[in-house]
Amino acid sequence: MKLAIERGFYFPSCEIYGDAPAGFWEYGPMGVSLKNKFVALWRRELVKRDGMLEIDGSQIMSKSVFLASGHIRNFSDPIIKCTKCGSTFRVDKFISDQTGKNIPELLPDNEIDSIIEENKLKCSRCNGILGKSSRFNMMFRVDIGPSFEEAYLRPETCQSIFVDFQRIFKTMRGRLPLGIAQIGKSFRNEIAPRQSLLRLREFYQAEVEIFCNPSKLDSLPFFDELSNTTLRISTDGLSVEEVTTNEGLKGGLLPNKLVAYYLSILADFYSKTGIDMKRTRFRKLGENERAFYASIAFDFEVETSVGWLELVACNYRSDYDLRGHSTVSKQNLEVIDPSDQSKILPHVFELSMGIDRSIYAILEHSFYEDSEHDDRVVLRLKPYLAPVLVGILPLVNRNGLSEKSQIIHSELKREFDTYYDDSGSIGRRYRRLEQIGVPFAITVDKITLQDDSVTVRQRDTMQQERIKVSGLKEYLRRSLQSS
Amino acid sequence: MKLAIERGFYFPSCEIYGDAPAGFWEYGPMGVSLKNKFVALWRRELVKRDGMLEIDGSQIMSKSVFLASGHIRNFSDPIIKCTKCGSTFRVDKFISDQTGKNIPELLPDNEIDSIIEENKLKCSRCNGILGKSSRFNMMFRVDIGPSFEEAYLRPETCQSIFVDFQRIFKTMRGRLPLGIAQIGKSFRNEIAPRQSLLRLREFYQAEVEIFCNPSKLDSLPFFDELSNTTLRISTDGLSVEEVTTNEGLKGGLLPNKLVAYYLSILADFYSKTGIDMKRTRFRKLGENERAFYASIAFDFEVETSVGWLELVACNYRSDYDLRGHSTVSKQNLEVIDPSDQSKILPHVFELSMGIDRSIYAILEHSFYEDSEHDDRVVLRLKPYLAPVLVGILPLVNRNGLSEKSQIIHSELKREFDTYYDDSGSIGRRYRRLEQIGVPFAITVDKITLQDDSVTVRQRDTMQQERIKVSGLKEYLRRSLQSS
Repeated sequence: MKLAIERGFYFPSCEIYGDAPAGFWEYGPMGVSLKNKFVALWRRELVKRDGMLEIDGSQIMSKSVFLASGHIRNFSDPIIKCTKCGSTFRVDKFISDQTGKNIPELLPDNEIDSIIEENKLKCSRCNGILGKSSRFNMMFRVDIGPSFEEAYLRPETCQSIFVDFQRIFKTMRGRLPLGIAQIGKSFRNEIAPRQSLLRLREFYQAEVEIFCNPSKLDSLPFFDELSNTTLRISTDGLSVEEVTTNEGLKGGLLPNKLVAYYLSILADFYSKTGIDMKRTRFRKLGENERAFYASIAFDFEVETSVGWLELVACNYRSDYDLRGHSTVSKQNLEVIDPSDQSKILPHVFELSMGIDRSIYAILEHSFYEDSEHDDRVVLRLKPYLAPVLVGILPLVNRNGLSEKSQIIHSELKREFDTYYDDSGSIGRRYRRLEQIGVPFAITVDKITLQDDSVTVRQRDTMQQERIKVSGLKEYLRRSLQSS
Repeated sequence: MKLAIERGFYFPSCEIYGDAPAGFWEYGPMGVSLKNKFVALWRRELVKRDGMLEIDGSQIMSKSVFLASGHIRNFSDPIIKCTKCGSTFRVDKFISDQTGKNIPELLPDNEIDSIIEENKLKCSRCNGILGKSSRFNMMFRVDIGPSFEEAYLRPETCQSIFVDFQRIFKTMRGRLPLGIAQIGKSFRNEIAPRQSLLRLREFYQAEVEIFCNPSKLDSLPFFDELSNTTLRISTDGLSVEEVTTNEGLKGGLLPNKLVAYYLSILADFYSKTGIDMKRTRFRKLGENERAFYASIAFDFEVETSVGWLELVACNYRSDYDLRGHSTVSKQNLEVIDPSDQSKILPHVFELSMGIDRSIYAILEHSFYEDSEHDDRVVLRLKPYLAPVLVGILPLVNRNGLSEKSQIIHSELKREFDTYYDDSGSIGRRYRRLEQIGVPFAITVDKITLQDDSVTVRQRDTMQQERIKVSGLKEYLRRSLQSS
């Protein structure tokens, strides 16, 4: 955390101001680069690999959209307000803070009021009497134009995918299953945002909605490609079974080939991010835990210093969304399945990924204190995810070494993410590069001026080799290709 | 426009709903790909080339930020409301619609009221009497948390750059001049949004703020690299002088090396987008046209079917922003200029680019009706900007040609943007690819099965050559490198 803030990965928004609202963070230069590379990997290993289509929709959407989606009715948290000082609390958190007891998020309001009464709970700020509990909708409302049309900032990116589905399917001459993907910001007016990137009011999602014919969940053209993927599945939130996709299907851990295939492509993607897959699991959710629209649900979770962290919600949403939008808009959103010419309202399986949390998990799993080498701190990021691929360091700032280093830097900087550093001892400069996860450090020394070679030092092994300047680009390109 | 909508470049948001608010558009699969490639080019040719730092800040920012920036006071349009039916109009547009006369945007309210009275203007909807004119602030307000803290969706991305400047400068050990860049959404509650991508309420900006020492605007390390760039400058909005950067400086068209250098890097970037530079100009703005914070201002404009379109506002904002944030936050935002150890509040020169408008201009300048070849419609996009780089087409759907085509497709699809198409005559399929700007079409025919070669057809020349399947990747990679 401290490293991430000090080294420009991320930091709180509006921090120079006293009225900076909680739950808003910004990516600094290192964070932007890491995030962009994470997104590029997601595009290559999920979107393009599966032949999905990607869209980019508006963040502000009309009221009707959220009437149809159920968010205006259902997307709320219980709150309680002090009648004396006006302080407002999220009820479940308040009760657990005051009594040590956990209560379910979906408890009806009258049961909440009974708990408050039984435990004689008072306002924790002024000891005043608490009012009745009520619901606080977590969408941000915005008013459009001088006539104040009611609209909302989307609480999830997927609604534009549902609303646009039919147009995309037709203009792009889609087949089923068809994945439609989107990356963008979503907004939730959390009552108690957590610190750092874990519970934000404004956050990045990468969502994929797979539209499918519900009668064909077991006929999938590319299934075999991923049938031997390793999946770690937990049905009770405690133990984990490690199986191949095929075994999981046969043993009944996975409901059908479609779900099995997309969980596998997701696992395969994360195995390339540097997250330690032994510390991950697909947790199958019970009936009480699933979102209101989901009939099958797995959470992809990663073990971190703050416990198990949900990175991706995988929900079988059936035709809940298309049916809802169809009803409210009075449009028939059915399409023709080209494989058998039947007219159907597709079902949807979704992979809803939190990007900020994924970045957090990657940073934590990459963090390494090297006790064998002066406790140096190393971020062991994959070369294709590292914010900076290569540092360029003149050994000393004289004898023409800076000038030569600048020339090498100029040649590399448009194709690769580079960092030029000429201040401080060479050892200190290596440490600085290791802390932001730079895989390679090029050192320019006296020999460089003689034979046009430099030393390239590897971050993890600390080994150095001499390489001709003319071969640097090829060397760096190759490092980006290996996964 | 029609082509863009039909082929999945962009389309209106929430279009299945009657309450879809105007001024919101979405990018379809082709648009997302084109936009991502435009952004990648911007990163390579502006951000990395100049060694800028990129951040990604929150879209919702606190009230203080916009008190300091002046937006709460100044960022408004004059409106007028009918006392009978409640219809609201943007005054300048209303008066010009009703009288044919253009009035300046910044006219005081009482002068507006006089014009309404003199011309005896009535409500254009119900003929009712109009009220007094007033100001409508164009920021979207959002309320945060259960205590409804006042905050706003940012009307320009640059405010996070100013607020975060000092932290970025220190953590990244910055030098002056230092460019800080950001890409993201901005929001303006326009009273009368225009159709398509030209005046949106939610839109993408790519902004660069160059922080500099005001006493050193003429000492710039990389100036010579761009001193021979061609610039087209208009001081009166009618005639254009075509000069090199050096000539512009000497002749007094450009005020200093810093401004000259960054206008040149911008022109050089746009010359790579496929926009016809002969139909562009830097228009120097007069005192009455400049934004309230700008002392020197050039608009980069492009000629389109809807007239001259502003793509980039280039403003010398002096220390207006840092001074404002310093005053309101009571923080000293000065930094040490490492070149002479002086403590200064940097000045700022900005390049504020509209991404959606740039995409629109690129599409329009790439659109070509080929009268020599059946009036085929071709989008002549650069290979590195084309949403799809290569189409893969089996000549017929039998004799194993589909299977072979699928194999080729699988090999190419993760590295390149590909499109597989096997329906319709080969001529019709070529036309479809040309309309979305696909530079290359690979056709798989009988000979392919014999010697593993395919034909590659070039979009613009329509010429075909036979290439070995094993050489396709290298062929396509090379096409992406040439600019």
